[in-house]
Amino acid sequence: MTDGVTGRYATVRAAVLGTGLIGGSLLLRLADAGLDVTGWDPDPVTREQARSRGVSAPATIEQAVAGRDVVFLCGPLPTLPRTLTQVADLTAPGCVLTDVGSTKVEVAAAAARLGLTDRFVPGHPMAGAESAGLPAASPTLLTGAAWVLCPATGAATVAFRWLTGLLVELFGARVVPMSASAHDSVAALASHVPHLLAGALAGAVQRSPLRDAVLALAAGSFSDGTRVAGTPAERTANMLLGNRDRVLHELAEVRVLLDELAGALRAGDAPALTAAYAQAGAARSALRGRRFAPADREFPVGGDHAVEVAWLRGLGDAGGHLTGCRIGPDVVSYPAWLPVAD
Amino acid sequence: MTDGVTGRYATVRAAVLGTGLIGGSLLLRLADAGLDVTGWDPDPVTREQARSRGVSAPATIEQAVAGRDVVFLCGPLPTLPRTLTQVADLTAPGCVLTDVGSTKVEVAAAAARLGLTDRFVPGHPMAGAESAGLPAASPTLLTGAAWVLCPATGAATVAFRWLTGLLVELFGARVVPMSASAHDSVAALASHVPHLLAGALAGAVQRSPLRDAVLALAAGSFSDGTRVAGTPAERTANMLLGNRDRVLHELAEVRVLLDELAGALRAGDAPALTAAYAQAGAARSALRGRRFAPADREFPVGGDHAVEVAWLRGLGDAGGHLTGCRIGPDVVSYPAWLPVAD
Repeated sequence: MTDGVTGRYATVRAAVLGTGLIGGSLLLRLADAGLDVTGWDPDPVTREQARSRGVSAPATIEQAVAGRDVVFLCGPLPTLPRTLTQVADLTAPGCVLTDVGSTKVEVAAAAARLGLTDRFVPGHPMAGAESAGLPAASPTLLTGAAWVLCPATGAATVAFRWLTGLLVELFGARVVPMSASAHDSVAALASHVPHLLAGALAGAVQRSPLRDAVLALAAGSFSDGTRVAGTPAERTANMLLGNRDRVLHELAEVRVLLDELAGALRAGDAPALTAAYAQAGAARSALRGRRFAPADREFPVGGDHAVEVAWLRGLGDAGGHLTGCRIGPDVVSYPAWLPVAD
Repeated sequence: MTDGVTGRYATVRAAVLGTGLIGGSLLLRLADAGLDVTGWDPDPVTREQARSRGVSAPATIEQAVAGRDVVFLCGPLPTLPRTLTQVADLTAPGCVLTDVGSTKVEVAAAAARLGLTDRFVPGHPMAGAESAGLPAASPTLLTGAAWVLCPATGAATVAFRWLTGLLVELFGARVVPMSASAHDSVAALASHVPHLLAGALAGAVQRSPLRDAVLALAAGSFSDGTRVAGTPAERTANMLLGNRDRVLHELAEVRVLLDELAGALRAGDAPALTAAYAQAGAARSALRGRRFAPADREFPVGGDHAVEVAWLRGLGDAGGHLTGCRIGPDVVSYPAWLPVAD
């Protein structure tokens, strides 16, 4: 990752629609990299804030997306299908569209209904903060993030390859290729259920007669365990509702474990409790200490890309990621990494 | 808080028994402050590590506690009653004893059975880390921590006052006075239930077929929400078992909230979900943005201290804390802080 962009992406013209925390951070990085970029937000105050940070922020979506090579859709989840419809009409067929929403099945289905599968690449950068809005945005918020992109066969593969290269160059992204449904299942456990647990814990404390004393003693475990309960309530509600069935399914799995822990505690069974925490600790060790081995692959540039897409999805399902996409005259090559078994 | 200790605490002779993460951090700070301090640990390798960090670490408890003014008991929870018995026999009646265990009712009851209530002040600094052992200890780990001490009437109040002053001077501690049972109820919500939720989440991921992909996408919410699942399993099990009934009670309260959230999600009820997260967010805002007003008080040095102890416990129950204890010829005065209502 370099500060400015050189080579094939140096002349990219980009637009970011919805310039809150994530969209704003994207916008600021694109601008810092020297790209021709416009930002648009429905809120005129936000547009003014963008201008005061030196970024072009026209008053209408039409102006923002005119002549763009790529448009990032960064508004709230429920607005995405409508924005997608609008942007599809306003942009050329070669303009790549992507989003940053925290669930992918619904928006992918909307794109399919609109006939946009060839140029809409569903995306989700795994980054965020408790804060919200453009004032909290930073050009480095997304640096080095795991960034899910959903590949598909046919012309869609070309858009996926191009966007992968762009995100790696601009953000040093670790691009995780996944199907939309695999993403939503994994995100349920990696993000959505943690939001439910944090909400339940913070909500219980807020209601408790012990609240003030609990806050006084709140050390790391409570503070860490409730952090995401402080994210904007409506954003969290939209995220959970956008992935309802998978979230409820994974929550049930977490409840099984919670019941086991509570059962061992009730029974005074120290060995069972210790064993359960040793198992939980193994996930933490794996999170902190994962090692990766190279898993680079090449594919023909042409064809229907079915083998390429199958490999990409398998890579993401296995916890792997891409750190680039080089397109030659005959072959496309992916530098890729797979986790080594514990 | 100064680096060295002056005034009434400059000549304190202290001992720390059990020099893992917390005890080791205590020991290193006492040594840095220039106090005469000894550390003891049952593990000879740990004693050698203490010596290599320039601290006196004799081979026996007898040597470590001989002639001490204060002894900090920092071993695992289940060992505390036995160590207390041992140390009581080896020290003078004026030697103040305290501990740093994460539950207080059991050890307070053990002290009462041993007739040590007058000089044993149950304690719990709210600090920790995922790591363990003396190599992970640091003289600054406990700096500025909320530190629960349990006051009691009679001679015990004298020990409480003295220890409060020492902890404020050495650690810049915010001393939170509480009864042992109030502490254990509050700690159940502030620390023990968060450990259960973290264990359930990390355990469910460890078992899941999606594990590797979840770890690849694990952003802040998962990483923060499972952090304490990485603490040593046996320590966590002991902590939970030492506060079993209160932990199960507070877990049931958290489950009520979790059921409400899941119910609203299942029903697709966006307003209910948003309202629940707004309530949860209020606890986060209060945690980050609490303001405090002075609540200083004075009490007569003599008497049975019943009014003083009742005020102290009320202060802690209300989320307040002490930032000192000045003992004059006639009065004892506490600089104290109470949270201002949201």
